[in-house]
Amino acid sequence: MITSWANGKIKRLVQLQEKSRARNGEGIFVAEGIKMFKEAPLSVLREVYVSEGLWHQGKERLAEIEGKLAQCRERGIVVEQVSEEAFKKAADTHTPQGVLFVAAQFSHTLPEMLGKALGRHQAGGRPPLFLLLEDVQDPGNLGTMLRTGEGAGVDGVIMARGTADVYNPKTIRATMGSLYRVPFLYVDGLAETAAVLKEKNIAVYAAHLKGNQYFDEIPYKGGCAFLVGNEGSGLREETAELADAYVKIPMEGELESLNAAVAAALLLYQAAGSHRKRNGN
Amino acid sequence: MITSWANGKIKRLVQLQEKSRARNGEGIFVAEGIKMFKEAPLSVLREVYVSEGLWHQGKERLAEIEGKLAQCRERGIVVEQVSEEAFKKAADTHTPQGVLFVAAQFSHTLPEMLGKALGRHQAGGRPPLFLLLEDVQDPGNLGTMLRTGEGAGVDGVIMARGTADVYNPKTIRATMGSLYRVPFLYVDGLAETAAVLKEKNIAVYAAHLKGNQYFDEIPYKGGCAFLVGNEGSGLREETAELADAYVKIPMEGELESLNAAVAAALLLYQAAGSHRKRNGN
Repeated sequence: MITSWANGKIKRLVQLQEKSRARNGEGIFVAEGIKMFKEAPLSVLREVYVSEGLWHQGKERLAEIEGKLAQCRERGIVVEQVSEEAFKKAADTHTPQGVLFVAAQFSHTLPEMLGKALGRHQAGGRPPLFLLLEDVQDPGNLGTMLRTGEGAGVDGVIMARGTADVYNPKTIRATMGSLYRVPFLYVDGLAETAAVLKEKNIAVYAAHLKGNQYFDEIPYKGGCAFLVGNEGSGLREETAELADAYVKIPMEGELESLNAAVAAALLLYQAAGSHRKRNGN
Repeated sequence: MITSWANGKIKRLVQLQEKSRARNGEGIFVAEGIKMFKEAPLSVLREVYVSEGLWHQGKERLAEIEGKLAQCRERGIVVEQVSEEAFKKAADTHTPQGVLFVAAQFSHTLPEMLGKALGRHQAGGRPPLFLLLEDVQDPGNLGTMLRTGEGAGVDGVIMARGTADVYNPKTIRATMGSLYRVPFLYVDGLAETAAVLKEKNIAVYAAHLKGNQYFDEIPYKGGCAFLVGNEGSGLREETAELADAYVKIPMEGELESLNAAVAAALLLYQAAGSHRKRNGN
């Protein structure tokens, strides 16, 4: 059992929680909590840490993850006990649930996302749906976007490099597990991505205050991608210009803008709803 | 100038930021930031504190609020300078913008909200739209709901007592000023509110996983109110039963639920969109 927060492994976990450079250097991330652990694909799990408290006192909660722990051991994934004090040091949350793990980062590609989306559509399923993000800064917003994206049935979230890190602990928590299931990708710029999508007849819409069409008055017949920008400044001009059309979300009152995750949710669900109704289910 | 964080006024501000009991005892709240100050109605402002840094170094930023500060002084509202150290102590944010103020809490009533909404509708405007919240816990979610509510044109946000405090500093920030413009109200239980709304022909919908209608397949012809529950556990059975109908947001993937603020946004904007299209604008 690891009993000291000065232990090298604990120090490394803290580094991995706090610094994206440390995570990216090793191609790994740290996540915590019972739900995140239960839903983690075995193929990405590397190391698992369980707090003494959960191990000895949390029988009901431990029962929830015992099957998964057994599967880890079968695969040779190390499961270590950690004292409460050391666990609290390693955890990012104030009241950690007692399980924390290191996992391999995902490596999705645009051809893979597109192949799956276009294949489904050709087979009579719903059309492709993508979310393109430019420099969204709030980790919670980004995580909520992945979560909402899963609900709406997004085929991928593609982010300009200036966007927050999906492996930030706050983002991971806000995804509620969608991190494992929604393909995402960082790109140097969104111009190339937009060009590839357009080539596949996927219409690119920019969420923009200058939009001349309301988001809920567009038929969204085929594949769609939505460009959503930074919380404070929106999309850069040159990025907005990549779009086939600007769409606006109507606003009453004196509000300047909506929360970026709310805006993304409205756009994705509007398109998903149009697709669903056209597909007759 | 207040230079010590041990000053009684600073201690009181810290109490007011941290404790809802302290706020409610005096019927006041504390908010900070340039945007929140600029948009604050003069009638609710009580005390204003400006940091030394903003006063002496932040010329551009100070210019933004000088007009408002002058209006305060005209009304006899005290504007005090505070040293950086003391200001940081009083502020809730890590990097405060240098202006912080005490304001009177709002006191909205259901008859007032209803009167305005029904009057507008009778005059040919859009139908009433309400959001009813039960025990939403996350202050950021609550603030985002007020913000989105303003955008959608909500006539009031009515909250069961177990809901987070709108005057929590995190909630206030997340409202982005909607706190000043969206009428809200805490009630002991939502049963009476639902009864009053129904009496005025406002349909009450509960967001519920067991809903048998998708939220975007309902025509929303007249006035609507949406019941949204706690982030983890949703609506209590007895609260859901107050509704005329249960509505469901479709979800792809393996997601258990959407973020509560996202769910509220989808429902409100769906109804607002139906109302807008019916009103032909």
